[in-house]
Amino acid sequence: MRLAVVGAGAVGRSVIELAGEYGHSVTAVADSRSAAIAPDGLDPETVLADKDGEGRVGSSAPEEALDAEYDALIEATPTTLGDAEPGFSHAVGALERDRHVVLANKGPVAERYGELRAAERESRGEIRFEATVGGAIPALSTIEDFGPDHITAARGVLNGTANFILTRMAAEGLDYEHVLAEAQDLGVAEADPSFDVEGTDAALKCVIMANVLSEGEREFSLADAEVEGIEGVPGSALELAGEDGRTVRLIGEATPEGVRVGPRLVPGNGTLAVSGTRNIVQFETTNAGRLNVSGRGAGGPETATAVLSDVGRLG
Amino acid sequence: MRLAVVGAGAVGRSVIELAGEYGHSVTAVADSRSAAIAPDGLDPETVLADKDGEGRVGSSAPEEALDAEYDALIEATPTTLGDAEPGFSHAVGALERDRHVVLANKGPVAERYGELRAAERESRGEIRFEATVGGAIPALSTIEDFGPDHITAARGVLNGTANFILTRMAAEGLDYEHVLAEAQDLGVAEADPSFDVEGTDAALKCVIMANVLSEGEREFSLADAEVEGIEGVPGSALELAGEDGRTVRLIGEATPEGVRVGPRLVPGNGTLAVSGTRNIVQFETTNAGRLNVSGRGAGGPETATAVLSDVGRLG
Repeated sequence: MRLAVVGAGAVGRSVIELAGEYGHSVTAVADSRSAAIAPDGLDPETVLADKDGEGRVGSSAPEEALDAEYDALIEATPTTLGDAEPGFSHAVGALERDRHVVLANKGPVAERYGELRAAERESRGEIRFEATVGGAIPALSTIEDFGPDHITAARGVLNGTANFILTRMAAEGLDYEHVLAEAQDLGVAEADPSFDVEGTDAALKCVIMANVLSEGEREFSLADAEVEGIEGVPGSALELAGEDGRTVRLIGEATPEGVRVGPRLVPGNGTLAVSGTRNIVQFETTNAGRLNVSGRGAGGPETATAVLSDVGRLG
Repeated sequence: MRLAVVGAGAVGRSVIELAGEYGHSVTAVADSRSAAIAPDGLDPETVLADKDGEGRVGSSAPEEALDAEYDALIEATPTTLGDAEPGFSHAVGALERDRHVVLANKGPVAERYGELRAAERESRGEIRFEATVGGAIPALSTIEDFGPDHITAARGVLNGTANFILTRMAAEGLDYEHVLAEAQDLGVAEADPSFDVEGTDAALKCVIMANVLSEGEREFSLADAEVEGIEGVPGSALELAGEDGRTVRLIGEATPEGVRVGPRLVPGNGTLAVSGTRNIVQFETTNAGRLNVSGRGAGGPETATAVLSDVGRLG
């Protein structure tokens, strides 16, 4: 397939780099300021060198990417809340042109799910969004294969930054502020870490799963989620938990009824107590009990893997 | 889709019971002695009551099921080795009639993979076999979505009987014979448990994964696998392991180069140390590190779930 990659951050770059390995070509790339267009396929190295060297991917206007020759638009611009722009308009624009859309951007899928599905129904194109939940972990494809009716709940650790912090707090007996600083030094937490530590990122992923689980019946957005982050978890709570063979993890849960995210006590050696930046999604199924999928929930190549798996499942 | 279910054991029965939930109808059922045929769809309760009451599913000859009206044949007869009959002929027979085949029977996929794929190439039908590896766990679909070229190894605990026995030996400090008897009482181990405790079942599943990982380049069968079972594991080995924070699990590993199955030391609280009858498959991926999927690896409904997921992914 020919891919138009919109967004040249970590995920977009990795998609550009890896597309060839999966047998696809990249015929357009856009960042916020520019676009590079080539119907016969762009050279990944050239595009990325331009981005590194000049701060922009090409010499066309960014909106020209939407009109280029491609089979699937890869929406990898940063997640935005509320109106989820400009990602939402990119996705709908591609669907209006009867193209497929594969999203890594959580915004449109979490905040305007019904409108996105409506645009899909009017289009010959299809939307897929595995990369929006759990990076490389096959979370949404598992729900799809089982059928949403056969999954009653999806819960887990869905934010690597928060999980890293809690893991280190428990391991070292340190308090939140100290470990946050360490995480920022390591690049695991951002300068402004609120999106991760307040639980927003985990909540968006759970909202997306809840939308899929309740497909056609109800629709959720971030505003519907009950969210509590980890900044209020004292080191003493982790010590106390440890004495009882437990630990604390930021657990998100999605059911067809809604979404809750918050710090929870879990068995210290149990399945949900993944370490460091790893993520896990645990499904309750109607006919096959409990199912767990875990792995790297974030990262350029990891998330690109999910994008390219989705491309392989289109049409 | 219309399904012809061949094999009325635990898996076949569950497929018959659950097909309606997934929007499919069962138009033919065969056991070793008889068949029930109904182009407009059989009533699951009637078929299963006949099987329970009279020991056979219907009043037609079993071979008539292959000629019935159906879109996909579900091959759920018991796994046989070597020539993998009669399952192999059922599968090829359906493909020769341009129908799809979904296998729960490991025999044809492990022992005659190349011939099965050759028959598929000549057919308008497609083969799928998620249910042959890890029951409800999405193992083969994960390899498919990542692409076999992007997975360098698949390893894990793939036999619940052997895992239950080792788990109990470690937990209770009991020896193999004692726990085997307990497992047989509970119905977790068969009267003749050799298929499970000698590692054959786990090896077949790994051979299937190795065949998929090396698709088009090499082909394996059970004879190619290096297999060691658990009957030689003394209780003292588990005690010794426990003192070092480890335990013993029957681990199978599949790579594009081959298959090895045997008892291995693993970290006691680690990912591979699943408990009881649970299974886990761990993938090493080229771009996304390590990925784990775990859950119920066996059982009628559990395996039927995998069969019906496959039906959903056909064509």
